[in-house]
Amino acid sequence: MPVFQETAHSSRDLRVRRSRARPLPRLSMQPEISRSNGHDGDEKYEVVVIGAGPAGLFLTLLLARYGLSNSLACFDKKPGTLKAGQADGLQPRTLEVFSTLGLHHEILDEGCHMSEVAFWNPSSTKKGIERTAFVPDVVVPARYKHEVTIHQGRIERILEEDFHAYSPDRSIFRSTGFVGFTLDASTDPEFPVRIEIDVLGDERTSPQRKIVRAKHLIGADGAHSKVRRSMGLQLHGDTTDHIWGVVDFVIDTNFPDIRKRCAIHSDTGSVMVIPRERIASGHYLTRLYVQIKDVIPAAEEGETLDEKARSSKRRAAITLESILEQGKRVFAPYNIAIKSGTDIDWWAAYQIGQRMTHKSTLKDENGVERVFLVGDACHTHSPKAGQGMNVSMMDSYNLAWKLAHTLHGLSPEPQKANKASESNTPTTVLNTFEHERLTVARQLIEFDSKFSSMFSGQIGAEKSVEGLTHDEFLKVFSDGSGFTSGCGVEYAPSIIVDQVSDPETIAHVDAISFVKKDAYLSGVLRPGRRLLDTIVRRYADANLRHLHDDFLSTGRYRILVFTTDDLVDRQKVTTHKAETSISAQALETICREIIPAYPRDTIELVVLHPFHTRDFEWDQMPDCLKDFAEMTFHGPTGPESFYEIYGVLESRGAVVAIRPDGYVGVVKSLADAKSLGDYFDNCLVRVDV
Amino acid sequence: MPVFQETAHSSRDLRVRRSRARPLPRLSMQPEISRSNGHDGDEKYEVVVIGAGPAGLFLTLLLARYGLSNSLACFDKKPGTLKAGQADGLQPRTLEVFSTLGLHHEILDEGCHMSEVAFWNPSSTKKGIERTAFVPDVVVPARYKHEVTIHQGRIERILEEDFHAYSPDRSIFRSTGFVGFTLDASTDPEFPVRIEIDVLGDERTSPQRKIVRAKHLIGADGAHSKVRRSMGLQLHGDTTDHIWGVVDFVIDTNFPDIRKRCAIHSDTGSVMVIPRERIASGHYLTRLYVQIKDVIPAAEEGETLDEKARSSKRRAAITLESILEQGKRVFAPYNIAIKSGTDIDWWAAYQIGQRMTHKSTLKDENGVERVFLVGDACHTHSPKAGQGMNVSMMDSYNLAWKLAHTLHGLSPEPQKANKASESNTPTTVLNTFEHERLTVARQLIEFDSKFSSMFSGQIGAEKSVEGLTHDEFLKVFSDGSGFTSGCGVEYAPSIIVDQVSDPETIAHVDAISFVKKDAYLSGVLRPGRRLLDTIVRRYADANLRHLHDDFLSTGRYRILVFTTDDLVDRQKVTTHKAETSISAQALETICREIIPAYPRDTIELVVLHPFHTRDFEWDQMPDCLKDFAEMTFHGPTGPESFYEIYGVLESRGAVVAIRPDGYVGVVKSLADAKSLGDYFDNCLVRVDV
Repeated sequence: MPVFQETAHSSRDLRVRRSRARPLPRLSMQPEISRSNGHDGDEKYEVVVIGAGPAGLFLTLLLARYGLSNSLACFDKKPGTLKAGQADGLQPRTLEVFSTLGLHHEILDEGCHMSEVAFWNPSSTKKGIERTAFVPDVVVPARYKHEVTIHQGRIERILEEDFHAYSPDRSIFRSTGFVGFTLDASTDPEFPVRIEIDVLGDERTSPQRKIVRAKHLIGADGAHSKVRRSMGLQLHGDTTDHIWGVVDFVIDTNFPDIRKRCAIHSDTGSVMVIPRERIASGHYLTRLYVQIKDVIPAAEEGETLDEKARSSKRRAAITLESILEQGKRVFAPYNIAIKSGTDIDWWAAYQIGQRMTHKSTLKDENGVERVFLVGDACHTHSPKAGQGMNVSMMDSYNLAWKLAHTLHGLSPEPQKANKASESNTPTTVLNTFEHERLTVARQLIEFDSKFSSMFSGQIGAEKSVEGLTHDEFLKVFSDGSGFTSGCGVEYAPSIIVDQVSDPETIAHVDAISFVKKDAYLSGVLRPGRRLLDTIVRRYADANLRHLHDDFLSTGRYRILVFTTDDLVDRQKVTTHKAETSISAQALETICREIIPAYPRDTIELVVLHPFHTRDFEWDQMPDCLKDFAEMTFHGPTGPESFYEIYGVLESRGAVVAIRPDGYVGVVKSLADAKSLGDYFDNCLVRVDV
Repeated sequence: MPVFQETAHSSRDLRVRRSRARPLPRLSMQPEISRSNGHDGDEKYEVVVIGAGPAGLFLTLLLARYGLSNSLACFDKKPGTLKAGQADGLQPRTLEVFSTLGLHHEILDEGCHMSEVAFWNPSSTKKGIERTAFVPDVVVPARYKHEVTIHQGRIERILEEDFHAYSPDRSIFRSTGFVGFTLDASTDPEFPVRIEIDVLGDERTSPQRKIVRAKHLIGADGAHSKVRRSMGLQLHGDTTDHIWGVVDFVIDTNFPDIRKRCAIHSDTGSVMVIPRERIASGHYLTRLYVQIKDVIPAAEEGETLDEKARSSKRRAAITLESILEQGKRVFAPYNIAIKSGTDIDWWAAYQIGQRMTHKSTLKDENGVERVFLVGDACHTHSPKAGQGMNVSMMDSYNLAWKLAHTLHGLSPEPQKANKASESNTPTTVLNTFEHERLTVARQLIEFDSKFSSMFSGQIGAEKSVEGLTHDEFLKVFSDGSGFTSGCGVEYAPSIIVDQVSDPETIAHVDAISFVKKDAYLSGVLRPGRRLLDTIVRRYADANLRHLHDDFLSTGRYRILVFTTDDLVDRQKVTTHKAETSISAQALETICREIIPAYPRDTIELVVLHPFHTRDFEWDQMPDCLKDFAEMTFHGPTGPESFYEIYGVLESRGAVVAIRPDGYVGVVKSLADAKSLGDYFDNCLVRVDV
């Protein structure tokens, strides 16, 4: 029978609480933040975010986690979170990012996993449609091999709930509208962005206009962004002629694939089926995208000038009933109906369009970006490829750490010579945001344009201009997997993405001669692409772990070392022979010269080894390995080499710098470990060792 | 550009919230519950739980989830949750149960996974200890192949947080001590348990005595249980001579296996290493159990009567320093020390003891159990096998659904003849609690006695009485895996566990002749044992799923059908030939005759198929399959047969009733599906169809 004699010690209650990410170190002065009744009248925040949709909330959450929780405000004109409709799909890459923040569990548990896509086409033998293929939904390697659908409002709630663990104050202000901003460094050079907001009252009181000041303003306020308009920017691009209706409801059907994502092309039009999560009633939701045809007569030839007006008219004529009727025609010979006893959850009609701004930042007179656009505020797509919410949140993911590093004084100042230059070449870490994300937006808009036309086109129909054979359609679908999964993003070279990589170093012998984009999509290391997850076995405790779990989104850089088999000195124990091992030398360089040269706790070390046996001990390896990477030192889980996945030769190894967002910065040979310093000099300020 | 036309509908905000388990249906009258100022003066609750440790909180949470949230109170005399020390290990079975409640994520993410055990023994070639083997921590099949260690207070916080999602009121009352109870049916036959509590004030106010009344009282108030004493029960058994110290701290050591569970036997004593979770400082905790020797001189021969007193004295002489000093001797030639800059987290000394009560319930004059004991209140073990917190919570897990079914009027009344009988044979579902859990407690105490002696004994030492060779030790360790994993529990036959199973039905051909306990531990179906988890592929959406995810702990029974390959009628589509298929017949019987005979929403259907191809359609199978089990119909994920794991022949199939706690109730042949009614008549009241 236990008779305990307990001792009491401090910091114990931390054992009980939910874990929190530790904030980034701060070298810059903590600003003196004044709230509503500050001495000079204006509220001040380091960052003000306009819009509490997925992009705005995600940015706010990330900044709070990185350490800005006390000087952060997010304003949204709506009184609460979204209740129905809009976006519903999360890509594999978004799920990967969410898992580095611990935000994935509810989404994976409760969301609908789309493992497969079923393709349906006009039957060659009978009336109506028939299934022509099952295809995996995600064909690229990824931590999660499926997309997840779940209501956008729920994702917003998850983000906001997590945010509250980091911000003791109330920092998300709803019923607060953005009016406009000016850059005004003269009256307050530290907080040069002067923002007008309207605090909306209830029906009985009128809005109250207020001024808040910020170092940086972010417009996450959607397709009709007022921040964008205040910047003097416009969305450019076209709204096409394709009209689609979208309905979320509990379906009653004998269509056999209703729980799978389906691309249905019938002789009477197209439908996309998006299976959705189970709702509180116990039913499963279904989303249908229904192509709308011939609501009003098609235009005569030459009537092109009126096309947009005509489409708008057509759209206005669309009703829930007409969408469902058209759906029924496409599904024939199968029946669809609203499940008896249930209501339609949400419906809408829209025209497919791809539009974007040509800039997404506004610089002050010193060339410092003061205003940023993320999400729909700077690019809108069709919902077909399931991109919208994902790309928007990834904008925020790209911006947040750069902004936090800048505000915390961790990023180096630009070279004097480049400072005032209007060139597009990034000279600071913060500069790279627009450089990287506008390129992604452009690529995605091109892809989406192709992809959504394809869905609107009539497959196999000879007359259709956009006509594609079923095989062509499948090919576009597979080729697009890099985009649709979010895993194919590749950031262009810049100060934080190395331009030239030595193929001798990074590529597997077989791959050197023909490293194709496919190989990079499969995991071969390439600056600008995300580090692929694999399962590894940790040396210290023999646990199987996801490599990504050592690359959590805490705002830190990591050095990933692929050691060679000379890491273990079989003769060692008494004689120190570290100087003969190239792996040991690289580790010594990294631990003694690279990591300590930058602010404490900004670069972490992860080390991989190629040994399939376990008959080696800590004291056969350099001391710094255990000191710096005791719990982040891993090997393979089975007989296959996992170095191969990354295009690294076991006989040569590699050192890799990984950015805080999980993208590869630079790949170097073990012998060249010292040159990591050249890379980090672009990313982080040096400190006195 | 989307131009949405939204419609508004009710119940939409449910889409945003975290999902909640739906409560059990209730056939009995909802009692009129009065709180503090009720008309007759006493607070009333259907269930009162004393003690808010893991057992009490888990019980309270389960009852709230099952639907009793408004008539439930939990009292604890302490002002808050535990801050350090005590239990720290969760077994694979406990993790399985937690995952059926969605309570596993934080524990798996933040806890320490013990994948392996390292055995260390006196070196044969040099001074000090050497590693003799690595052994997997868990050798039985289970959803999680490892134990997890994490601070008990954190588990309590997780349970309490989840509880608050189900109980809008404050139902966990701290600083409230239990005084005593009486059974008093005369003044209030519906709430016969009269409970005296002391509401403790702060230092300035004196406790306030109060009476609360309940239908049932549960003592989850630990080894010193006052509820147990009020029942007139005692713990019986022995406190042995073995003394151990336990310390939680951040260790600084060159011992190579410090992140693994270790059993160290040196010439100077034994130590168990339990690796622990990472704490907020970034360090990893370590727990050491250190065997204490010769603190005061051993007893002379014949001095047996004074043994306990002697041990207590010895225990009192133990200090943190003496524990660490002894630890250092055992670890030699390796060094251990408290990590510089950190404090010891917690330490204690205890004597190993195995004690239990001979009863765990108290019946009223009608033979209805009114008072129950769970956890340490009725059995205490050594911490060596990591049992304590697990067995305690599993007591609550066993009790909660039986109590909820009884209070909701779902369980049938006992046969008149047996009602007043004092026999130990259970005649109601509620009766089976004591029957099942006291047996488990007895078995575990026997096992723990053997297991912990073994740890205290000197391995390989010829003189030691308990001396075991290293191989003998390893054997006990492996044989004990059923106990230590929690997966080997087998409930004895009763009205809810079928006694005789037809081996022809359940066992695989090869297994029929010699189905050993091992086979059951490996998953072969056996009434009284838990259903093993496997990965299956859902037919409707091709998702890979854990079978356990269809057996969530919502208090429902399930019928699990292993169909044969005649389920699919290859000729069908136009002609209905269901009457020729034994699988289809069994499904029809279950869906038309069994499930509707009992209260709505108390029995769910899960169906498995043996097909490795996917070329069959819903319309080739009986309609009731899609109606009752569209999203719970699964097949194998690869070429191997998964029926084999369960000992079911693909050519014969089986129907299985699974209890709400995941244990097999009865296994029948497909042809005998109708006889499931005999089983469910013991479990649930019949309703008019």
